[in-house]
Amino acid sequence: MTAPLRVAILGSTGSIGKSTLEVIARHPTRFQVVALAANRSMAGLAEQVARVRPRRAVIVDGAALGAERDLPPAKWEAGRDALLSVASDPDVDVVVNGLVGAAGLEPTLAALEAGKRVALANKESLVAGGPLVLEAARRGGGALIPIDSEHSAILQCLAGSDRGAVARIVLTASGGPFRGWNRSALEGVRPSDALRHPTWAMGAKITIDSATLANKALEVIEAHHLYGMPYQAIEVVVHPQSVVHSFVEFVDGSVLAQLGFPTMELPILYALSHPDRVDDPRLRTFDPVRTSPLTFEAMDPELFPLFELGAGAGRRGGTAPAVFNAANEVAVAAFLGERIGFTAIATVVETVLDQTTERPVTEVADVLEADRAARVAACAALEQMGAAEKGAGA
Amino acid sequence: MTAPLRVAILGSTGSIGKSTLEVIARHPTRFQVVALAANRSMAGLAEQVARVRPRRAVIVDGAALGAERDLPPAKWEAGRDALLSVASDPDVDVVVNGLVGAAGLEPTLAALEAGKRVALANKESLVAGGPLVLEAARRGGGALIPIDSEHSAILQCLAGSDRGAVARIVLTASGGPFRGWNRSALEGVRPSDALRHPTWAMGAKITIDSATLANKALEVIEAHHLYGMPYQAIEVVVHPQSVVHSFVEFVDGSVLAQLGFPTMELPILYALSHPDRVDDPRLRTFDPVRTSPLTFEAMDPELFPLFELGAGAGRRGGTAPAVFNAANEVAVAAFLGERIGFTAIATVVETVLDQTTERPVTEVADVLEADRAARVAACAALEQMGAAEKGAGA
Repeated sequence: MTAPLRVAILGSTGSIGKSTLEVIARHPTRFQVVALAANRSMAGLAEQVARVRPRRAVIVDGAALGAERDLPPAKWEAGRDALLSVASDPDVDVVVNGLVGAAGLEPTLAALEAGKRVALANKESLVAGGPLVLEAARRGGGALIPIDSEHSAILQCLAGSDRGAVARIVLTASGGPFRGWNRSALEGVRPSDALRHPTWAMGAKITIDSATLANKALEVIEAHHLYGMPYQAIEVVVHPQSVVHSFVEFVDGSVLAQLGFPTMELPILYALSHPDRVDDPRLRTFDPVRTSPLTFEAMDPELFPLFELGAGAGRRGGTAPAVFNAANEVAVAAFLGERIGFTAIATVVETVLDQTTERPVTEVADVLEADRAARVAACAALEQMGAAEKGAGA
Repeated sequence: MTAPLRVAILGSTGSIGKSTLEVIARHPTRFQVVALAANRSMAGLAEQVARVRPRRAVIVDGAALGAERDLPPAKWEAGRDALLSVASDPDVDVVVNGLVGAAGLEPTLAALEAGKRVALANKESLVAGGPLVLEAARRGGGALIPIDSEHSAILQCLAGSDRGAVARIVLTASGGPFRGWNRSALEGVRPSDALRHPTWAMGAKITIDSATLANKALEVIEAHHLYGMPYQAIEVVVHPQSVVHSFVEFVDGSVLAQLGFPTMELPILYALSHPDRVDDPRLRTFDPVRTSPLTFEAMDPELFPLFELGAGAGRRGGTAPAVFNAANEVAVAAFLGERIGFTAIATVVETVLDQTTERPVTEVADVLEADRAARVAACAALEQMGAAEKGAGA
């Protein structure tokens, strides 16, 4: 019996963090949670600390650090430096990065530079900082294992294969709740409609991104970096059942697919145990007869303009994906706050991308500056639409 | 550029042999055909020799050796010893075994003992001689790569995985032309009905075995030997589109599947190039939208009694699978000769299996004797049914 892997969970009170804790709770001899970090959810973090008893507990937003800061046994810390220190803690083997937003990039870099395995759910790390992340992994010897179901599927299909043997990657997309709708019907969509995802239970931001397929564009960019695939060899197909998590086509015409019940616990467990697999009877629920039929449709680009905007930003490269991502985040927040309509999300993002000239990404500051500028530009675009945060009605 | 792999094709005038030649013709720098062997199709072999110009050409049935025996450049030989000598020829790297029947076992053993890679399409090698084949591979250092689309799928899904990580194998079956029929309708089936396979173009014997699902039982036995899986961890699901060629479920609940347009060229190319893949644009035809929907159904055991008879023979072990296979071969020949009806194939096989006590398989003679005795018993059963070869009407 080897010692359990020591796991740090960044973003532990979010959706990925909670699922990671669920998975680890079932495998106490394999994995041990030694550090938890949350942005500002003090109550949630305190509850987790009491239950999991990590060595370190971090609240990134120091102002949120409440009375529970003395809760044993963890050493409680606050602030961004503490977060980065956990990411590179010498007594941590695996860093699960479930942080949301561009703030997730630096911890990814810190962990990779320190030679750790990063189980990555934070999309912005690769989308906005792709070249930096790959360089940090190369320099520090760290390994990047995606938690995303689609990228986990691709990794599993690629196991044991030479990357030169891959001809094409086909990411599946559920198509979200508006698959098959027409463009004018989308005008009237309310947040509550868009938050009703047909197959996956996820956080609000990512659920909206699934409804607009912005999420799928981000995944295309991630796949490009993770697997060194050119954009023309990455496709998307709509698969409403979310059972096939992606396809890999090899040069000899053979195709591998990874399938499973739509639960994040499966890619999380794989990211923790990679390249091994851990026996988990609870996740062995696959039944081809019960999932039949599996259907696949072409994506309607008219209905989902954010997909092409995002993929186009990926092809532009440099800071363009960071701009796309930040503008999308601001626009989605405006939609969730009922300040703009569903189809206006794409309008805001397109406006910002059109105004921006991308620059090369050579350091973190390039990404953060692009992110900041894009948010300013998105707010300005909202203002012009009469939908700025202050003074704009629902 | 490395030298091309030197390939010997046993059963070159059959369906697998012809497809192998097609594949190799597209990749002359990778593969070179150095020997061809056919059972008795002299004209077909002569045509292939003239086209492919191998070093050796073998007709197993000496009586069939015709005037073309001097056709250059091959050295022409006849008889079973020549076949075995080709299988163990020191100047051959890969032996493609596309022979039909129990006669395929000894060449497989000879090639594995000589340390060669065997691209195996001959089902009887593993079904009847499983323990002998595994032992020959261990002793000689040869490698066994299945050509069967289902087993090739499993091998591809297992690439890079520890075998202990596998929880379950699910073989797909097209269900043949009689899927969804009822038992009484099957009584009236004629050979021409059964030869109309919905998805695969194959030889007559294997097409009938696909219609009865005897073929799928043979594949279960092969999978048991090839992948060291217990019978209770091997399942079959009906998948009429024949696009998913099999599933592998891992202990962590993740499932991999291999997919492709139903052509034998794909698993043949993979068996030749394993573990590498060879670029073949002609085989890159996968389109998930075009194959949609993919459906899966439970198999109806009432309709396909030969499946359970075969799987049961597998679980009995020893010579029982050889008996099942030989009895089935005789019964299928009687059906193709219109001497018995479709449902009587199972009756004959069941009668023979009931009369037989299986014995351990420790040498080739055990298999050949079981094969011989089962054929005698099957003929006797046919005689009792008034369907013996001589004097029995159509």
